[in-house]
Amino acid sequence: MTTSKQFSLSVKVVVRDRSGRCLLLKRSMRSLSNPGKWEFPGGKLDPGEGFEEALIRETAEETGLRIALRRVAGAAESEMPDARVAYLIMEASAEPSDVRLSDEHDDHAWVTMSELPEMDLAEQFRRFAAEYSRNAGDVRSD
Amino acid sequence: MTTSKQFSLSVKVVVRDRSGRCLLLKRSMRSLSNPGKWEFPGGKLDPGEGFEEALIRETAEETGLRIALRRVAGAAESEMPDARVAYLIMEASAEPSDVRLSDEHDDHAWVTMSELPEMDLAEQFRRFAAEYSRNAGDVRSD
Repeated sequence: MTTSKQFSLSVKVVVRDRSGRCLLLKRSMRSLSNPGKWEFPGGKLDPGEGFEEALIRETAEETGLRIALRRVAGAAESEMPDARVAYLIMEASAEPSDVRLSDEHDDHAWVTMSELPEMDLAEQFRRFAAEYSRNAGDVRSD
Repeated sequence: MTTSKQFSLSVKVVVRDRSGRCLLLKRSMRSLSNPGKWEFPGGKLDPGEGFEEALIRETAEETGLRIALRRVAGAAESEMPDARVAYLIMEASAEPSDVRLSDEHDDHAWVTMSELPEMDLAEQFRRFAAEYSRNAGDVRSD
């Protein structure tokens, strides 16, 4: 058995709008990791915080949107020099509203399921996005 | 937007031995949910506990095994009358040792990747097990 780098947990969310598009955020060019790459809203849990609560808080901070979790969408992982991150990725709906970005992101985009895997995503989400877009389809609630 | 049942987080682990078999535990016949069904070791996080720490602790309590996490294996979910559970499922190796069960489980089995989807698994792990067994192969380290 080898000593391995500790995993930390991050929760991310695929926010779908009423026409089935999902929300991507473009990381700031000043980010230390993956500058300018597209990713999903979300982040790490604060101490003592539940994961649903953390995801609702992180999404509100990063997008201004109020979300309701619908289901588990998948998982992913990334490896950095001193740590590894395990991502639990949920799917959510959002109350219709304008997106208000924080200074963590430079832009946002609502993309269809066929556009999703073509975006310049942060590397750790590419495999998930390809599988999710194949399985999730473009859902219309109207 | 509808009001939905709160999600809680559970962490589970596919423990692989040196010949690539994975460990399943048979839930006690006295369990309130899924009595007699096969599942993976793991459980919920204690307050303030990291998910890797929780998984190592739960696996030690349920099997007596010391594990080292290798990678993210997938995700799953279950719905109960008053709550929903999101599962983050990791893959781990274990130091060779006899399995010592707690009173939560009545039996254990080391199964190959071709046997895994044929087991009478708790319903929430069936789709994950089918996908994992297709993709993970029977790894041999010797």
